Amino acid sequence: MVEPDFKKGNGLIPVIVQDDKTGDVLMLAYMNQEAWRKTQETGNATFWSRSRDSLWLKGETSGHVQVVKSTFIDCDDDTVLLRVEQIGGAACHTGHRSCFYRMITNGAVEVIGQPVFNPEDVYK
Amino acid sequence: MVEPDFKKGNGLIPVIVQDDKTGDVLMLAYMNQEAWRKTQETGNATFWSRSRDSLWLKGETSGHVQVVKSTFIDCDDDTVLLRVEQIGGAACHTGHRSCFYRMITNGAVEVIGQPVFNPEDVYK
Repeated sequence: MVEPDFKKGNGLIPVIVQDDKTGDVLMLAYMNQEAWRKTQETGNATFWSRSRDSLWLKGETSGHVQVVKSTFIDCDDDTVLLRVEQIGGAACHTGHRSCFYRMITNGAVEVIGQPVFNPEDVYK
Repeated sequence: MVEPDFKKGNGLIPVIVQDDKTGDVLMLAYMNQEAWRKTQETGNATFWSRSRDSLWLKGETSGHVQVVKSTFIDCDDDTVLLRVEQIGGAACHTGHRSCFYRMITNGAVEVIGQPVFNPEDVYK
């Protein structure tokens, strides 16, 4: 079984989540070994929440789970890329499709795109 | 001037690099504030090398610089996404276009694609 090298990041590695259909980068989160194995077993992206210090099934509150279509590991084994189907159409807790919905140009910020959902309707 | 929140990651934030034309995720690297400002000033992706503990202009050895086309920041200000033109066609030191050239399925690894260049020709 090939696994990422969790030792490098003190037990946590960054995981890039990409929309399998559009190629849009949706978010970045972290996995420990438990989250990695859970993701492999269930096929639903599961991370380690650094703020809550607990296992985090993405979409456990909103229902907007990420169904893993394919999994890639980088050349030095310390970063993972997941290509997923994003249930509900949005990965970001703000309701935007991607967490990267703000573009920075010469220090100025521009919001790209409209939210797909209203967070107040989803997180009750 | 909007900047990432470098305090969160003890001075370093992860940066996702995506091919602006194809949408392929090429690599993940890290920036400190100096690398971020250098990237903003020069338009060429500049990172902080954790292994060498020094500023790292991507492509400084190979010539395969990354020309930044657009810059995005995530919802909680601690991850950056760069869309770039990858000079030389490959981001990975192995010669592959993307550092994520290995797919993991049920614990087994499959190499996706062929190297674009021979590392021995590029890193002399």
